[in-house]
Amino acid sequence: MTRKRVVIVGMGFGGVRAARTLAGSNLDVLLIDRNNYHLFQPLLYQVASAGLEQESIAYSIRAMTRTWPNIRFQLSEVNGIDLDQRQIQTSAGEVSYDYLVLGAGSATNFFGLATVQQHAFDLKALADAEVLRNQILYCFEQAVTEPDPARKRSLMTFVVVGGGPTGVEFAGALIELVNYVLAKDYPELGTHLARVVLVEATDRLLASMPEKLGMYTLQKLRSMSVEVLLNAQVTDADGERVVLHDGAVIPAHTLVWAAGVKAAPLAATLQTAHAGGGRIPVQPDLSLPEHPEVFVIGDMAWLEQDSKVLPMIAPVAMQMGIYAGRAILAREAGTTLPPFSYRDKGSMATIGRNTAVAAAFGMSLKGYPAWLAWLLLHIYYLIGFRNRIVVLLNWVWYYWYHERQVRLITGPRSFR
Amino acid sequence: MTRKRVVIVGMGFGGVRAARTLAGSNLDVLLIDRNNYHLFQPLLYQVASAGLEQESIAYSIRAMTRTWPNIRFQLSEVNGIDLDQRQIQTSAGEVSYDYLVLGAGSATNFFGLATVQQHAFDLKALADAEVLRNQILYCFEQAVTEPDPARKRSLMTFVVVGGGPTGVEFAGALIELVNYVLAKDYPELGTHLARVVLVEATDRLLASMPEKLGMYTLQKLRSMSVEVLLNAQVTDADGERVVLHDGAVIPAHTLVWAAGVKAAPLAATLQTAHAGGGRIPVQPDLSLPEHPEVFVIGDMAWLEQDSKVLPMIAPVAMQMGIYAGRAILAREAGTTLPPFSYRDKGSMATIGRNTAVAAAFGMSLKGYPAWLAWLLLHIYYLIGFRNRIVVLLNWVWYYWYHERQVRLITGPRSFR
Repeated sequence: MTRKRVVIVGMGFGGVRAARTLAGSNLDVLLIDRNNYHLFQPLLYQVASAGLEQESIAYSIRAMTRTWPNIRFQLSEVNGIDLDQRQIQTSAGEVSYDYLVLGAGSATNFFGLATVQQHAFDLKALADAEVLRNQILYCFEQAVTEPDPARKRSLMTFVVVGGGPTGVEFAGALIELVNYVLAKDYPELGTHLARVVLVEATDRLLASMPEKLGMYTLQKLRSMSVEVLLNAQVTDADGERVVLHDGAVIPAHTLVWAAGVKAAPLAATLQTAHAGGGRIPVQPDLSLPEHPEVFVIGDMAWLEQDSKVLPMIAPVAMQMGIYAGRAILAREAGTTLPPFSYRDKGSMATIGRNTAVAAAFGMSLKGYPAWLAWLLLHIYYLIGFRNRIVVLLNWVWYYWYHERQVRLITGPRSFR
Repeated sequence: MTRKRVVIVGMGFGGVRAARTLAGSNLDVLLIDRNNYHLFQPLLYQVASAGLEQESIAYSIRAMTRTWPNIRFQLSEVNGIDLDQRQIQTSAGEVSYDYLVLGAGSATNFFGLATVQQHAFDLKALADAEVLRNQILYCFEQAVTEPDPARKRSLMTFVVVGGGPTGVEFAGALIELVNYVLAKDYPELGTHLARVVLVEATDRLLASMPEKLGMYTLQKLRSMSVEVLLNAQVTDADGERVVLHDGAVIPAHTLVWAAGVKAAPLAATLQTAHAGGGRIPVQPDLSLPEHPEVFVIGDMAWLEQDSKVLPMIAPVAMQMGIYAGRAILAREAGTTLPPFSYRDKGSMATIGRNTAVAAAFGMSLKGYPAWLAWLLLHIYYLIGFRNRIVVLLNWVWYYWYHERQVRLITGPRSFR
């Protein structure tokens, strides 16, 4: 008798938890991802702001699965899924399944703004973070030899769109990079002229957190000299200028888009219903209505709880991944689980050195205690003991010496 | 009175030493490099073999020059030099000089083999190492899903050309990566079928060292199951096959070229004499015959000592860099230095775990003592205290756990 095969597509927070849950079972588990590593996305902004090397927030999937004999990995791109035939078309051939766990995550949502999509940098993949770090450092290098003062300043102007955790954390990390590190690297530049502009469409920051934490974050960022524009939207960009909804123009060579995500493109190819952001509505047990053998988890899944759609964040994906794994084991054992229920353990965002905000279990934390909690939790959730040490080392270094070591412009590059 | 300007082109081992020598003087020093970091090239092969992250062997030039008030840095490509006008054409405009120190280093020499140049990987720049690491890991991933056994094996076959230190060190590191790390990562593959073939044109390895060390290296590499071909030359390649001088064909998807270097292309653009490998003959004080204000150092310089041309290695470049700096200071003080004289402190190459060879002051060292000496010296010469810690951490990890953490396939990539 051949063992039943579970295929897990996507090795993000959800996929990894599903795999762990199925490790050691009598199911044949195949993991598929287009990268050979799991990415710890919450620290991506630190790679982009020259605080961490990219290797320290990525963990080899094969290193993870090595000790699990029933789990294999296949590096490939999933091009389509035939739900009726239970077959997956991958760049490395067809793969069939008995159970499917779909956690391909999300993609940046530019809301149809074509020129913005063309010129903006985003922060989804590891390569994005390296590209953005190179861009920031290269802009400063170009500014050194730029004779025109206006152009020099626009090279040192960075517009960050989106007042959620990613936008807030990146804007804070960027202004600290400029003020603590690059100010010393570029004494000839006058880096006090550099601008970090954070643009948010609503009237507050960190909408998922209590209002007073949003206010605290706003005041903190402004005191760090981030220019925060509320009730403002970016509508156009050309690589040298950013245009707002009211026609205002910010001369800036760098536009970073952290204003929204949508389900990964794979979701659109599935013959199933689609909800907001292209996400896939799932049953209370995370399976598809017509295909109980298919579970959709994480950012791709659309599920309401207490009349609110679950957010596209890592804790939801992790809990869904564990649930999907358990649901498969239960089904194989002839039992069923109670419906999936998300336990909100709170959320947090770091603003800068010694300062963060956190909301959990009805409590609000801000400043140094929140920052320490943020630091410990992120080290805890990082996979791989060595990665934890390297990340800690970088943080200690930065904290003591105000030094970010990874300010390298890497990869092939052409000069004007 | 304006201060005289020294321009140093190239921040390799020579350029960095020249800059340090001129730090704190009353000369205005401008450093030019096309990268914003100094690269510790001797460990490049460890980045390519997934042992070190690229950030740990690169050091920000601005971090280095920060504490030297008379030194500035300009990131740009040098396109040409007008020796008579004392002007440099860079991608960021024209720069004039009173003294010029030219240390643009070397480029890979494919000896006119066009198909080899097209298909081979080399190990000169940081990006090369990342590209080669990605290639190695991606070949193994492709082999997993490859149905044809012959093609599967050629995906797992790596031909390394050149029996000098780079070829020897990379071949040893690669076979250890395969046997210690990838064998566990790819249990489904049969990695004992993987091949590492080292091709050397002469009848011995490590020609710059005593013959008994070359013999020891040959035996060691063979005992580690590297296939060493002596008196053999690669003449053709097409990305799937490597052809030798006698018509023998090695089916291999990866060809690594470490068989020779020549002066960087910039040397050819100079209106001066050229010697073997495009190198520039210099006076005993490292200056150009017609231009005493121009010093050529490192791999670009052609200088005989005791009727032998000085080799293109880091210690020569370092000593030349220090000398050029001192020669300029002496000239400004109205004195002259005795001619440059290279002090050979020996050479070494690591073969694998616990084993290396070293020759210094007429003594030969091999095995564990040589390996320990190699390790300590490389840590010592690495710039940046944090880099030393990260590199040591990686080495300790590998030594204890047989784990190479950086086995990530990074950057944008397209699937077949």
